[in-house]
Amino acid sequence: MTTDALLSELYGEHHRCCPVADSPVQLVLSSERPIDLVELEQLCDAVGWSRRPLRRVRKALEHSLLRVGLWRHDPWLPKLVGFARCTGDGVVEATVWDVAVHPHYQGNGLGKALMAYVLEQLRQMEVERVSLFADPGVVDFYAGQGWDLEPGQRRCAFWYSP
Amino acid sequence: MTTDALLSELYGEHHRCCPVADSPVQLVLSSERPIDLVELEQLCDAVGWSRRPLRRVRKALEHSLLRVGLWRHDPWLPKLVGFARCTGDGVVEATVWDVAVHPHYQGNGLGKALMAYVLEQLRQMEVERVSLFADPGVVDFYAGQGWDLEPGQRRCAFWYSP
Repeated sequence: MTTDALLSELYGEHHRCCPVADSPVQLVLSSERPIDLVELEQLCDAVGWSRRPLRRVRKALEHSLLRVGLWRHDPWLPKLVGFARCTGDGVVEATVWDVAVHPHYQGNGLGKALMAYVLEQLRQMEVERVSLFADPGVVDFYAGQGWDLEPGQRRCAFWYSP
Repeated sequence: MTTDALLSELYGEHHRCCPVADSPVQLVLSSERPIDLVELEQLCDAVGWSRRPLRRVRKALEHSLLRVGLWRHDPWLPKLVGFARCTGDGVVEATVWDVAVHPHYQGNGLGKALMAYVLEQLRQMEVERVSLFADPGVVDFYAGQGWDLEPGQRRCAFWYSP
């Protein structure tokens, strides 16, 4: 089997390889390869997010519009090292949540590649607009990639805990 | 048929009546009665929103987590006079979009009743948190109902047009 065929088998037809400078590690983005919930929990632990019951995480993923994983390629056991997901109607609105890159892999432009891949998938759906809520610490990250920080002229954001 | 039975048949088991002071008009909230797309378009025209192709609106509604209509009750032909919808995963996140009350019916606390009904439905799903983007002109409306305006300590909102 060629490398391309193997990658497509593991990660789906629409996977994208992310080269990492000066490293033999091969990283692959995919919205098709299923996300293993235990691996996702380990990734969330690594970035310091609080845990949720797995059954709730499963349901949240099932009801998401888009789930993107970033894997460290291994022909036998790919390892999940990044993640993002979107909710939305797939037509007018999409909202990005839970963007994470494992600390060990940060600083290689992978977060940027992950977001570019997410936006490309949404563009293919012809979604009209995309929103997200970001921690204050990553405002520059998003602003540097063409995102508009609100409140601007158009929209003020609100938050509510039922 | 009793009035209650008629209302349940027209608007579903979980409808809610909204009394309007000094008026014989009966208004009913429901997340169960299907939304007629042409009526929704007329409502959007009335509040000054730009039109979208009906097939896109249909798809957006189908892929929404929750669709709530406010109807002026009529046993033969209820008329849609308010609307709101949510996207989300139904577990962790929900986002409210397209909140509208026909100008003729504004100023009667109906927007507030509509939002309370939306939040109650989301609470029943046990959604953890709810977000929305509002025009600057309605900031007070949401702030007065317990919504937190961002950016606060926690989250900054971003907006993107693919």
